[in-house]
Amino acid sequence: MGDHWDTGRTEAFSDGVFAIAITLLILEVNVPETSFDNLWRGILDQWPSYLAYATSFITIGGIWLAHHGLFRRLRFANRQLMLINLGLLMMVSFLPFPTKLMAEAIHDSDAERAAAIFYGATLLVISSLLSALWGSVLRDRYLLKPEVGEDEIKAITLAAAPNIGFYIAMIVLAIFVPVVAVFGFLVVAIFIILRAKGDRTAPAPPAPTRSH
Amino acid sequence: MGDHWDTGRTEAFSDGVFAIAITLLILEVNVPETSFDNLWRGILDQWPSYLAYATSFITIGGIWLAHHGLFRRLRFANRQLMLINLGLLMMVSFLPFPTKLMAEAIHDSDAERAAAIFYGATLLVISSLLSALWGSVLRDRYLLKPEVGEDEIKAITLAAAPNIGFYIAMIVLAIFVPVVAVFGFLVVAIFIILRAKGDRTAPAPPAPTRSH
Amino acid sequence: MGDHWDTGRTEAFSDGVFAIAITLLILEVNVPETSFDNLWRGILDQWPSYLAYATSFITIGGIWLAHHGLFRRLRFANRQLMLINLGLLMMVSFLPFPTKLMAEAIHDSDAERAAAIFYGATLLVISSLLSALWGSVLRDRYLLKPEVGEDEIKAITLAAAPNIGFYIAMIVLAIFVPVVAVFGFLVVAIFIILRAKGDRTAPAPPAPTRSH
Amino acid sequence: MGDHWDTGRTEAFSDGVFAIAITLLILEVNVPETSFDNLWRGILDQWPSYLAYATSFITIGGIWLAHHGLFRRLRFANRQLMLINLGLLMMVSFLPFPTKLMAEAIHDSDAERAAAIFYGATLLVISSLLSALWGSVLRDRYLLKPEVGEDEIKAITLAAAPNIGFYIAMIVLAIFVPVVAVFGFLVVAIFIILRAKGDRTAPAPPAPTRSH
Repeated sequence: MGDHWDTGRTEAFSDGVFAIAITLLILEVNVPETSFDNLWRGILDQWPSYLAYATSFITIGGIWLAHHGLFRRLRFANRQLMLINLGLLMMVSFLPFPTKLMAEAIHDSDAERAAAIFYGATLLVISSLLSALWGSVLRDRYLLKPEVGEDEIKAITLAAAPNIGFYIAMIVLAIFVPVVAVFGFLVVAIFIILRAKGDRTAPAPPAPTRSH
Repeated sequence: MGDHWDTGRTEAFSDGVFAIAITLLILEVNVPETSFDNLWRGILDQWPSYLAYATSFITIGGIWLAHHGLFRRLRFANRQLMLINLGLLMMVSFLPFPTKLMAEAIHDSDAERAAAIFYGATLLVISSLLSALWGSVLRDRYLLKPEVGEDEIKAITLAAAPNIGFYIAMIVLAIFVPVVAVFGFLVVAIFIILRAKGDRTAPAPPAPTRSH
Repeated sequence: MGDHWDTGRTEAFSDGVFAIAITLLILEVNVPETSFDNLWRGILDQWPSYLAYATSFITIGGIWLAHHGLFRRLRFANRQLMLINLGLLMMVSFLPFPTKLMAEAIHDSDAERAAAIFYGATLLVISSLLSALWGSVLRDRYLLKPEVGEDEIKAITLAAAPNIGFYIAMIVLAIFVPVVAVFGFLVVAIFIILRAKGDRTAPAPPAPTRSH
Repeated sequence: MGDHWDTGRTEAFSDGVFAIAITLLILEVNVPETSFDNLWRGILDQWPSYLAYATSFITIGGIWLAHHGLFRRLRFANRQLMLINLGLLMMVSFLPFPTKLMAEAIHDSDAERAAAIFYGATLLVISSLLSALWGSVLRDRYLLKPEVGEDEIKAITLAAAPNIGFYIAMIVLAIFVPVVAVFGFLVVAIFIILRAKGDRTAPAPPAPTRSH
């Protein structure tokens, strides 16, 4: 219980997993050779792959931003944090699988519902693990760097909260109109990125000391 | 014999290999298109893949934790350490192959025994190389940072020891009931992570200086 | 608007994505087993794959150099920069897909035009995002380190500018003679690397203090 | 000509490429499902894959060690060094392709000669680029850190030299007995690692200050 870990190498390892998971996504995008006599058409027909690629890429990008924001506020990590982080990385690495499934299943009315719900459930688990990571820090506040203020803590907590609600709503939507829900996952991902908390908040940008 | 290496870039390179090996595991998980008319069923049928994925992911995660704990206690590495480390990375990178084999062979009574033993043997080699890494440090203690105490050394040695025994037991089990052994590998992996030694041991967490 | 990010972990994450995207390119290069009775011939027949591999590798290498040169001149990043950077990484990760398509489509008169234009369009988007990244820094010059001089800014701006024009010219060329345009993309990539701006400009190399 | 680059991010990027290239090698190792009724036999039949995997892994490991040893002796890199380094990374990333070819072609008397020569030629190019990297440093010695002594330079030069000769000998051998040459490549790789130059040479290990 009393064991502590420096965050530097954990951040480096996590960055590696995020970067690889995000880059492997493209390996599943493919135009079948049978479409080569009309390649433009074949390229356009792959739109579900591009949609799934962009959604997963932006989602992982947003999780990376949140992860970065969280870890740089830590003095060190305890065992619980290391375990939750490993669980988070395991689910992020898992994401290329439901992404591929969703890209293949759009167009197929039997399969697209299951694929969209399965994809949404994976995102929900990822989002919950990220919340659990932050919650674990809040329970053991000595893990935080002393300079992290109460306002900053509240801002991060607020930024993290609504994602879980959004994902549940999208999963319900996926039961009725799977394709719409898929676009919904993309919108949530964009919102996560736009709401991400910076390393510092500057109330006003410093006056430029350079003339244009 | 007199050559020394700084550990920084070796850690970065090892982290890269661990992160990639852990992330490549998902590339082998797949639902065949023939299962798309009942995709939920198709997703569930892949449980051996998920089991193999989780087992290998958590095992590599545990090895990464142990590797991190070992290297951060070093002043520098000698040639023997560099060679054992390269051998360890070679076996960790190899793990996606027996993982895939095991995921494919469950359900197939002819193949699952061979696949589980082959998988267990790979884990046994990895675990032995990690022990050899630590043993090599213990033989050349000038490699350790001066602040590393005798108690810490004993604790790490104790934490590393039982894994090899566990793996041998699981391999014997795999001869008789392969599927049970596969779950056993998962349990050992979880134990490795729960027993991992932190960078520092704080006898008691510092009193929180912040009110909740 | 007031949020700021340290650049260290963003550089590490971006490096990871660049390194993985550049290395995944080889996975698509393949000699079919049917060519094994005359393997030299089979190896030579893959020249479009090698051409596509080299072009994409050198292009990503050049983008990495430019990205490195840009980020090391920053004090910190703002939200806009983080978003444009993520978009840039998303397109760089996407590049293995049009690369594979182009390698497969050369020899096929129907498909090679579409594949070359699609490849060029991807490079054009990447190049534009890199320009947008630099443009965004120029609009918010307080992001720059104070020691970055006006001359250095002009030199980087000049080095970045012509690529977009080159790519548009190559895309137009691809409409008429696709294969020639593919070689053109390689030439542009080589030019990008030869024009890349270093971290420092030494007007004259320091006199060697060592005798040969 | 006067542009200089810091070596930190180049090392990180190169490490990424080495780590990924080394880890991707396992993706090509596979037991066909038709061998599942005698899986032990199927696993053993893949020995050319294991041989090719180990040879390429140890070779890249040795190149990484040499690369590490070279870059840590640099104050900064000039344009020529950056270009040669990018060429080296391009060939290292290329290596999984001839590795796969060689693993597939052993057993096939028509193809194994071509595959072994092609593999050896790739190693020869990699080895030559590494020599060119060091040669370029020796021509512009102001790139070296001032503390790097003449003896150290000679030792590194000597360690780098014989590999090219070995590879040429193995390629000639591959014309007559390809399989023997493949084992030869493995032996050369092991020699490269055993001869690698450390970051520092300690004439004698410091006396242990700790009792056992």
